[in-house]
Amino acid sequence: VIVGVDIGGTKVLAGEVTADGQVGRTARRQTPGRRVPAPLVEAALTEAVLEVVAGERLEAVGLAAAGFVDVTRTRVLFAPHLPWRGDDVVARLSAAWGVPVLMDNDANCSAVAETTYGAARAAGSMVLITLGTGIGGAVVLDGRLWRGAGGMAGEFGHQQVVPGGRPCQCGRSGCWEQYCSGSALLRESRARLAASPALLAACGGDPGALTGPMVTEAAAQGDAVALAAFAEVGDWLGVGLANQVAALDPALLVVGGGVSDAGHLLLDPARAALARSLVGAEDRVVPPVVAAALGPEAGLVGAAVMVRELLQEDQSVGG
Amino acid sequence: VIVGVDIGGTKVLAGEVTADGQVGRTARRQTPGRRVPAPLVEAALTEAVLEVVAGERLEAVGLAAAGFVDVTRTRVLFAPHLPWRGDDVVARLSAAWGVPVLMDNDANCSAVAETTYGAARAAGSMVLITLGTGIGGAVVLDGRLWRGAGGMAGEFGHQQVVPGGRPCQCGRSGCWEQYCSGSALLRESRARLAASPALLAACGGDPGALTGPMVTEAAAQGDAVALAAFAEVGDWLGVGLANQVAALDPALLVVGGGVSDAGHLLLDPARAALARSLVGAEDRVVPPVVAAALGPEAGLVGAAVMVRELLQEDQSVGG
Repeated sequence: VIVGVDIGGTKVLAGEVTADGQVGRTARRQTPGRRVPAPLVEAALTEAVLEVVAGERLEAVGLAAAGFVDVTRTRVLFAPHLPWRGDDVVARLSAAWGVPVLMDNDANCSAVAETTYGAARAAGSMVLITLGTGIGGAVVLDGRLWRGAGGMAGEFGHQQVVPGGRPCQCGRSGCWEQYCSGSALLRESRARLAASPALLAACGGDPGALTGPMVTEAAAQGDAVALAAFAEVGDWLGVGLANQVAALDPALLVVGGGVSDAGHLLLDPARAALARSLVGAEDRVVPPVVAAALGPEAGLVGAAVMVRELLQEDQSVGG
Repeated sequence: VIVGVDIGGTKVLAGEVTADGQVGRTARRQTPGRRVPAPLVEAALTEAVLEVVAGERLEAVGLAAAGFVDVTRTRVLFAPHLPWRGDDVVARLSAAWGVPVLMDNDANCSAVAETTYGAARAAGSMVLITLGTGIGGAVVLDGRLWRGAGGMAGEFGHQQVVPGGRPCQCGRSGCWEQYCSGSALLRESRARLAASPALLAACGGDPGALTGPMVTEAAAQGDAVALAAFAEVGDWLGVGLANQVAALDPALLVVGGGVSDAGHLLLDPARAALARSLVGAEDRVVPPVVAAALGPEAGLVGAAVMVRELLQEDQSVGG
């Protein structure tokens, strides 16, 4: 059994991944958080993996982590929701579990999954954007993931798009993810909450209780405030995608993450803004903007794909 | 003889390029402009090439063109200073000259030259920015030029960095090159021309006669207005470079083009802004910002390198 594990900000999702990319048994745990000792997080991972293995033989584990993973793919340099800070997590877990372990950034893992089994199968190159609390990203060129010289490529969310703009958790300001993310969607919705009976009802009148799925549901029902929030976030999505296309000219743009569950409510305004903002749009092929195909399991599937490749390389070297 | 030709907005520069990247005989012509018939431009190219060949045997010609070159590297889709619009220039010139001809965007050619012989020799990955009237750019990853799915990668200058900002020749607004380029340097300098006796003297009191080299010279002599203009453009250079590093995490950043002749007057403020603007700068290796090494001949050298590679591939296929 090869297991992929997505270690997100709030939850751990583990799943058996077959050789053809299907997800079998899964297991969930809460992410213990970044202020707990690292062994607690690792215990949660172990529990989830063992639950998936269910007594069969574990072959390897791929980990998709929400954070900066270094270029050797063994250390988490920084992760907003995890206690790991530069320690060699992969060696520790590999020793504990007695099998090969591979770790990569969750957006990179999702990109590998979408390229292998999902929305980008036919594309030689693509930029993936995942919209959750913030923006995750990955770059695939000539069919291969570009991880960066230090493993930190794809941090599109921290490109500055507004000089002196909104403060960002990264310590800077005007970052793209302050205008285009689940957080931005909630900010827009809360600012006009009083004008939306549907959103007021959904959150019981408490702006702090409003969630992204509530806004998505209200927009799907035609709520004007929720639709305006998606139009605003979608517009910023298109502007930022145009910036990536100017730089990289990929064949395809794939949008994943929870916010993309809104489908065309998000992607239609994004496509319009991309066509408007992209240099030379009149004289070139504007890359299609498509929704990610693999949903919340993309990260764990991609991590499993990568660790399976690692096993095969080792075997071919050994043989 | 293999000849490289740089076809810029104002001049054509042709040169013999040896197998070890040295430039031999050169020849110059004015670029006839974009409102003349294409044969006039092609006649100017032919003259320059023949002058370089000087009766020896011509083997091949590489062309570096200031414009959008399509992914097959045979057509100029659009160039602000050239009359070509989608016609198959490469086939026409190859037939006229009776030798293989290859064409690419000038920034791509410069990147190949800097990677092969210049500032990026030891770097596995780099982003090249050339600062002239506007911004040119190129992306080298895993030692290879990434040209884009449609050949249009590296158009960093048209990333939007200021919403509703300065209008751009591309028809949009707030593009990076409106804040970071030779044009931006002149705009800054002209806005405070009255405060600079040195610049007033250099341009004879006529703001329209002010040139980039005049501003560079004044800054080198300590003129406060010229230095402030470089500080402003350099700051925007660093902010924009941080955006590229967030996306691509290259090992090296190379800055070329005429504006980069100012050296540390431009690069020091750029490095400061990069360190301040780059996400996670505290926890990562910030890529060095270095000046291009090959000067104004980089484009023609890179074009010659590429056409030489093409000849060698053809021979190895044939043999």
